[in-house]
Amino acid sequence: MITSSSNAQIKRVQQLLKKAKTRREEGVFVVEGIKMFKEAPIERIQKVYLSQSFAQKEACTAILREKGLAGEREQRVELVEDKVFRALSDTVTPQGVLCLIQMQTCTLKGLLEGEKTPLLMILEDLQDPGNLGTIIRTGEGAGVTGVILSRTSVDVYNPKVIRSTMGSIYRMPVLYVDSIIEEVLGKLKEREIRTYAAHLKGKNTYDREDYEGGTAFFIGNEGNGLTDALTGQADTLIRIPMEGSVESLNAAMASGILMYEASRQRRNKN
Amino acid sequence: MITSSSNAQIKRVQQLLKKAKTRREEGVFVVEGIKMFKEAPIERIQKVYLSQSFAQKEACTAILREKGLAGEREQRVELVEDKVFRALSDTVTPQGVLCLIQMQTCTLKGLLEGEKTPLLMILEDLQDPGNLGTIIRTGEGAGVTGVILSRTSVDVYNPKVIRSTMGSIYRMPVLYVDSIIEEVLGKLKEREIRTYAAHLKGKNTYDREDYEGGTAFFIGNEGNGLTDALTGQADTLIRIPMEGSVESLNAAMASGILMYEASRQRRNKN
Repeated sequence: MITSSSNAQIKRVQQLLKKAKTRREEGVFVVEGIKMFKEAPIERIQKVYLSQSFAQKEACTAILREKGLAGEREQRVELVEDKVFRALSDTVTPQGVLCLIQMQTCTLKGLLEGEKTPLLMILEDLQDPGNLGTIIRTGEGAGVTGVILSRTSVDVYNPKVIRSTMGSIYRMPVLYVDSIIEEVLGKLKEREIRTYAAHLKGKNTYDREDYEGGTAFFIGNEGNGLTDALTGQADTLIRIPMEGSVESLNAAMASGILMYEASRQRRNKN
Repeated sequence: MITSSSNAQIKRVQQLLKKAKTRREEGVFVVEGIKMFKEAPIERIQKVYLSQSFAQKEACTAILREKGLAGEREQRVELVEDKVFRALSDTVTPQGVLCLIQMQTCTLKGLLEGEKTPLLMILEDLQDPGNLGTIIRTGEGAGVTGVILSRTSVDVYNPKVIRSTMGSIYRMPVLYVDSIIEEVLGKLKEREIRTYAAHLKGKNTYDREDYEGGTAFFIGNEGNGLTDALTGQADTLIRIPMEGSVESLNAAMASGILMYEASRQRRNKN
């Protein structure tokens, strides 16, 4: 059992929670809580840390058994003294379990070739962790096949992003690129994926377009929207009509409305 | 100029920021930041507090002039020393302006009779401030005509709710009731407003229903969903289809998707 907060493993987890750079270098991220532990793909779990009091609970034993992690020679499970565990956790009321999960690599080729009619979210300089998590969660629900982000966006393995994905982080393919324009656009064209920029100056109402074929939505930064450069590259500028004096919608909300409009059209076509 | 954080006005504002009870008793709430100051209806502004450094800016003078608050005899504007202002603010990087705004009363009768085809959000025990703010902001955009909340829900004048409404707090009619079932449902029936409960067990897909007439959506608590009692009273249980392993959507996101589906149908009918 780990009883000191200066233990090397504890230090490592704290670094992984705090630093995107450390996560990238090690190819590992941290998830917290019972739901995230339960849904974690067993082959990607590198380590499980259990607080002493959670480890004694029936709920804990049941999940360990179900995952095949209950054996005596299981090296992946570590017990942590309660007070040390609290220092480790990123949440206010830790549930007593935290796992290190191996990142999954995903390529543009994989994103484009795996699906007959891809539905992609292309996020340029998105900054808010809650927004990214919500887009991934809602996106999985709407049938989005992948999320592509500019390198300047928030890190998808930030603990706040992970929390708001509610488990979708394990299942949604996510790819960072240095330049959306240079690395992605040409490939989208080759695959005949239509690109739609969500833009306040869009002339086309979003629900009058056809998203049944391969579709990519461009969503911009929370404060500034999409850059002119990327906007200029989209096949169509679309707008979500707003009544009253509303100037814009939240980036995650706008994404959700677009993704579910695509989902609606695709469902009702069948 | 106010130079001490033990000044009675400063104490009062701090109470108004912290306590829903104080806000209710005084019929006043606090808004922060330049955008909220700009959009504040002049007749509802009870007091404006300006930090010394913001007061010296041209931007500040311009807004004061535009609102008719620039006069020497204007009693509603108070200068506050910068360091005292920081103690006052609820935000990390205060913009230097904070206003007290009079609440606006709204009645069920007003909500139901003001519109030919009301579009109402009925929120049962909603707890997250960000969710409520986002529902109000998105709701204004989608043409929602009013929001009704159970008394157990988060206070709409909570600073975090106000911030996430992005100004829609000034324009969206909001009503709290002790019992949705006893006070509201009968009146909805009389007005022939159809009620739809967003429910994971709903058999009807949300986008196959008709929201062109008077419509009310029921949305439940973030963790527990709608109570069986209220669900049982709805005309129709609707469900947002979810692919993958997604168990539910965030309450604000689900609301947004429903509100914009109603908006889409109403727009495309014309």
